[in-house]
Amino acid sequence: MTSPLPDPGAAVRHGFASDNHAGVHPEILDAIAAANHGHQPAYGDDVHTARLRRIVARHFGEHAETFPVFNGTGANVVGLQSMTDPWSSVLCAETAHVHLDECGAPEKVAGLKVVPVPAPDGKLTPDLVAPYARGFGVPHHAQPKVITIAQTTEAGTVYTPGEIAALAAFAHERGMLLHMDGSRLANAAAALDVPLRAITTDAGVDVLSLGGTKNGLMLGEAIVVLSPEAARGVLYLRKAGMQLASKMRFVSAQLAALLDGDLWLRNARHANAMARRLADALPEVELTRPVQANAVFAIVPPDAAERLAKRYAFHVWNQTTGEVRWMCAFDTTEDDVDAFAAAIRAELGH
Amino acid sequence: MTSPLPDPGAAVRHGFASDNHAGVHPEILDAIAAANHGHQPAYGDDVHTARLRRIVARHFGEHAETFPVFNGTGANVVGLQSMTDPWSSVLCAETAHVHLDECGAPEKVAGLKVVPVPAPDGKLTPDLVAPYARGFGVPHHAQPKVITIAQTTEAGTVYTPGEIAALAAFAHERGMLLHMDGSRLANAAAALDVPLRAITTDAGVDVLSLGGTKNGLMLGEAIVVLSPEAARGVLYLRKAGMQLASKMRFVSAQLAALLDGDLWLRNARHANAMARRLADALPEVELTRPVQANAVFAIVPPDAAERLAKRYAFHVWNQTTGEVRWMCAFDTTEDDVDAFAAAIRAELGH
Amino acid sequence: MTSPLPDPGAAVRHGFASDNHAGVHPEILDAIAAANHGHQPAYGDDVHTARLRRIVARHFGEHAETFPVFNGTGANVVGLQSMTDPWSSVLCAETAHVHLDECGAPEKVAGLKVVPVPAPDGKLTPDLVAPYARGFGVPHHAQPKVITIAQTTEAGTVYTPGEIAALAAFAHERGMLLHMDGSRLANAAAALDVPLRAITTDAGVDVLSLGGTKNGLMLGEAIVVLSPEAARGVLYLRKAGMQLASKMRFVSAQLAALLDGDLWLRNARHANAMARRLADALPEVELTRPVQANAVFAIVPPDAAERLAKRYAFHVWNQTTGEVRWMCAFDTTEDDVDAFAAAIRAELGH
Amino acid sequence: MTSPLPDPGAAVRHGFASDNHAGVHPEILDAIAAANHGHQPAYGDDVHTARLRRIVARHFGEHAETFPVFNGTGANVVGLQSMTDPWSSVLCAETAHVHLDECGAPEKVAGLKVVPVPAPDGKLTPDLVAPYARGFGVPHHAQPKVITIAQTTEAGTVYTPGEIAALAAFAHERGMLLHMDGSRLANAAAALDVPLRAITTDAGVDVLSLGGTKNGLMLGEAIVVLSPEAARGVLYLRKAGMQLASKMRFVSAQLAALLDGDLWLRNARHANAMARRLADALPEVELTRPVQANAVFAIVPPDAAERLAKRYAFHVWNQTTGEVRWMCAFDTTEDDVDAFAAAIRAELGH
Repeated sequence: MTSPLPDPGAAVRHGFASDNHAGVHPEILDAIAAANHGHQPAYGDDVHTARLRRIVARHFGEHAETFPVFNGTGANVVGLQSMTDPWSSVLCAETAHVHLDECGAPEKVAGLKVVPVPAPDGKLTPDLVAPYARGFGVPHHAQPKVITIAQTTEAGTVYTPGEIAALAAFAHERGMLLHMDGSRLANAAAALDVPLRAITTDAGVDVLSLGGTKNGLMLGEAIVVLSPEAARGVLYLRKAGMQLASKMRFVSAQLAALLDGDLWLRNARHANAMARRLADALPEVELTRPVQANAVFAIVPPDAAERLAKRYAFHVWNQTTGEVRWMCAFDTTEDDVDAFAAAIRAELGH
Repeated sequence: MTSPLPDPGAAVRHGFASDNHAGVHPEILDAIAAANHGHQPAYGDDVHTARLRRIVARHFGEHAETFPVFNGTGANVVGLQSMTDPWSSVLCAETAHVHLDECGAPEKVAGLKVVPVPAPDGKLTPDLVAPYARGFGVPHHAQPKVITIAQTTEAGTVYTPGEIAALAAFAHERGMLLHMDGSRLANAAAALDVPLRAITTDAGVDVLSLGGTKNGLMLGEAIVVLSPEAARGVLYLRKAGMQLASKMRFVSAQLAALLDGDLWLRNARHANAMARRLADALPEVELTRPVQANAVFAIVPPDAAERLAKRYAFHVWNQTTGEVRWMCAFDTTEDDVDAFAAAIRAELGH
Repeated sequence: MTSPLPDPGAAVRHGFASDNHAGVHPEILDAIAAANHGHQPAYGDDVHTARLRRIVARHFGEHAETFPVFNGTGANVVGLQSMTDPWSSVLCAETAHVHLDECGAPEKVAGLKVVPVPAPDGKLTPDLVAPYARGFGVPHHAQPKVITIAQTTEAGTVYTPGEIAALAAFAHERGMLLHMDGSRLANAAAALDVPLRAITTDAGVDVLSLGGTKNGLMLGEAIVVLSPEAARGVLYLRKAGMQLASKMRFVSAQLAALLDGDLWLRNARHANAMARRLADALPEVELTRPVQANAVFAIVPPDAAERLAKRYAFHVWNQTTGEVRWMCAFDTTEDDVDAFAAAIRAELGH
Repeated sequence: MTSPLPDPGAAVRHGFASDNHAGVHPEILDAIAAANHGHQPAYGDDVHTARLRRIVARHFGEHAETFPVFNGTGANVVGLQSMTDPWSSVLCAETAHVHLDECGAPEKVAGLKVVPVPAPDGKLTPDLVAPYARGFGVPHHAQPKVITIAQTTEAGTVYTPGEIAALAAFAHERGMLLHMDGSRLANAAAALDVPLRAITTDAGVDVLSLGGTKNGLMLGEAIVVLSPEAARGVLYLRKAGMQLASKMRFVSAQLAALLDGDLWLRNARHANAMARRLADALPEVELTRPVQANAVFAIVPPDAAERLAKRYAFHVWNQTTGEVRWMCAFDTTEDDVDAFAAAIRAELGH
């Protein structure tokens, strides 16, 4: 007795809930298959991980050290723990994934104190952070050690290189470090039309969570240490944090395929363009955040949102205000966008 | 500028270091590709994970609850934490992976006290455990709550259904629970020629780490809760333990492909048979453990081991005694075994 | 060679920095000496701890269970951990000691996610808490399990019985619990002129940190479980939290001496009266918080604060606004207050 | 209504269960009273703690840094955490208090992996430790960082200066550190007739838990960092570990009174002499461990032990072998010993 395979038609149509509802880009699937030859040493001592390290160093600088992991929470928590001591705290935007959406993993796995900072549009600035970067040397206070920012932010906004550099300078002046949650780093670079290193290494970021899953991978992210002295023990923390893949070649081969050529950029540009197209198709809808990358935030009345949700997947971001989030992915098509925009307009009576 | 793809010839020839040096079984790769249609809800609300749940319930009983995770350490630590309180201890064989080879993840992530119990051939018995199952109700002692065993063991040995049932009875009489690290569960079932449930559900195991990676998957294991009242909060602990895959369909589809038909059994039987073939080809070599599944442990003089290691990958298990481990995988061929056996005999001068 | 004993005159004169700069009340010292007869079982199996349990039950109800500990941080963290699961979060005022002044102990020892809630005057209300009591059942969110409030608050304000009951009802309706940091509980009861149970047991508090140190003890607090089903494993968590005194009789005897008669009330009333006297003596000073217990918060220009600090110990509460905190203790005298008030007026030129 | 004070006669007569069943030495009580003058800065910025630092430096060397804490578990766990990284392991005798009797605090508070090493008479040697000091640089293994020994050991035995120096050399050669649980350090120094520094600083110990409670204090121990570079962040870890006393002067004054003159030595010599006297009074009893300090371990048949336990408090150490532990304290009298010895002989029919 076997179970019938799911009907491919059972796949929900392309929705707008998250870029992780998408599947795997065909070039990534090909890379997985191509890596499936013979035996390879486990745990990262394979040729694909070695190649990935060279590719990442090409993007981020020769000092960049690469540690592939399974997922974004793993990259963030292991990365942050490698930058901190057991008595440290981490400052983040109050909207940060690391604060709201990781079930307390930073606290529970790494014992970190996470301090949320109010931040309009999801972006921190030195002025916003300053009142929370205090208590240095006072044993009653967890010691502020890291500022962590998301690029793009959880609000779909993008930090400019200058904004990042200002936060890095603020941190470094105080003996602190700058961490970046780059689960959508490619979307930010595409939006700004700059190389990846312009908003990371060159802007003073010390440790990066380099995203892959939301940009077309089956799964795979990497901790990239940009300032060698900023992180300690990543090798052990990754294992103790249960993020060390035994058959790592298949994670590394995906990341390598994404980053070696321009697939990372093609995918990100496309997702961003689809979000732009969606926003442009809804001139009468109130947008609540600047559309800078692959997310559109808008106000939709509850009854219209409810009807729309029966036809398309998306998230209600704020029950109180009626704010919703529509997210585009590498595989969102122009037809998907146009049909969705038409559905929205119909539900709103525009 | 792009990086040249690794030469497939750079793959190390089939070695005997570990079953996770092997690649992905072709039927698993096909399942991944087949799951790559359209969008699917993230984090396990997809049709492939739903199908996997039904398949696992067919093997282990209708009450079995399935939580796919990335790797074995994740399955073990999250599973154990779901069975315990913050004041609990876990008893294991002193050779256990969870004690020796997870960089302290149970202690560091879950705060568990891991108590190693001396165990010949890697197998616990009620008599061996008894002196360590003590201090109940005494606040100075971490409270013994779980006995965890590996099937097959780290010594390549296999627990019989009766041996497992005796440990389960011992545990349950004391208000304790039985956990099984089943990263090689299929090899054990194949060796015993029994269904999976005969050595799990039917023998009194409460929570299982169900292995996939070492039996032909790219990556993927599952926490399977066999006694519903034995585990709490797995849903949250998996997320906080950084083991919740966003595109979970691709993990679930692999496990489903392994377990729906008899692929799990074919792969395991083959790996076991190759180990048997290797042992039989070495009549003059001193074997240190019973060859019951897919591992062969033997004594090889250091100089011979060193020469052999230049030609084949394998682990020296014990530097002092000269014990080595040779592990066979689903993709080890008869030719691989015969060539390796010949090399061993040559190095030993047999 | 021995070291000269500190000159008693080296004791800083009675200051206004904190009620823990004070010494030990003479009746407490007597109780310590009286407990020093012969041997007593260690770790709480002594007659003094048994007596304390009866005294606490008289105050808080027969179901109240008492666990003496060393300090307030220990009482808070062990108490909170006993009320939560490893996937829980705790909501508190953004000014809470448990958030700001325990060096991240809740996160680092208990893995708790502490969620600060903006709260004027340091007091939470159901309306303030509501936006943060969300995400129930969603595995991405640490699950809100406890609201913790301080009585008196860190801002020197006092919750009325009705305000506490409203928070308890809010919590219990959602399957949550109410915890109270009562390091200054006596001051609150004295201020409200109600029995201790009116603002704890009768108001729906589930677990209490019962203060002693700030009300005249050498050291000693107690976790008091008011709702038996609200806490699990306190006995073990206290030990694992390094808060189990071996010679517990000397902690228990202090708490018993404080609580058996009316010493707790006399000390608290006196400290409160001294704060009132201080506030009344400074009609021209801007007070920033209602003076409800033993703390006075006021605005003092930086240069005046600096000069004053050379003569009296006190804390600058907010560097930006120039807010300072003056705290009275059980041993603050009328003369201390009058002299301090005169000094303040002099520095301010009033 | 008040609760009657415990009848001093209710104090159990001087027993032999533990040196923490004893009360407080009168000179210590006097020191507490003497410290009770006026206000003092909290959290260690007081004159008594400053004086204690000088006294400790006189004993252990000018580089010794002193951090008073509440209890032995606190001293051990905070001390060990300050010496380690989150990926470290700690090696100890399988009989160690830190392994058996702290409810898993090292694992649960500090995330440490505690590795028990079989050790006859409770003493480690380089040869015993060597097989466990392995896996350096291998990310699968928690990294061995500290060897911790108890002086005196939990078996009542005493390390010689040479034995300690050998362990220190072994550790330092491997980049590891040596920690000493000195809850009974004074008893060891008294037994060996050497200064405290001969078995600590001069023997290569890096960090010490300096005991006070078992040698006549009400409560109080200290973390003493002997090698400045061996520990990091003690100031913060002590607070986050909930071991920072607000009215620290009363802990420091006790330790100062113990260590300034020869009270530490008088108390320890006396307790040791009483154990010797007890052993000598029982020529026909089988002693299981060398009587080197203040503990006597002996075999007593279960029925005799049960009868004896009705008259005197003591611990059965090993249910299987009938081994019991009799512990003498600073306040054990010759009459106590003689009466107890007579009772033992009577129960044994000698």
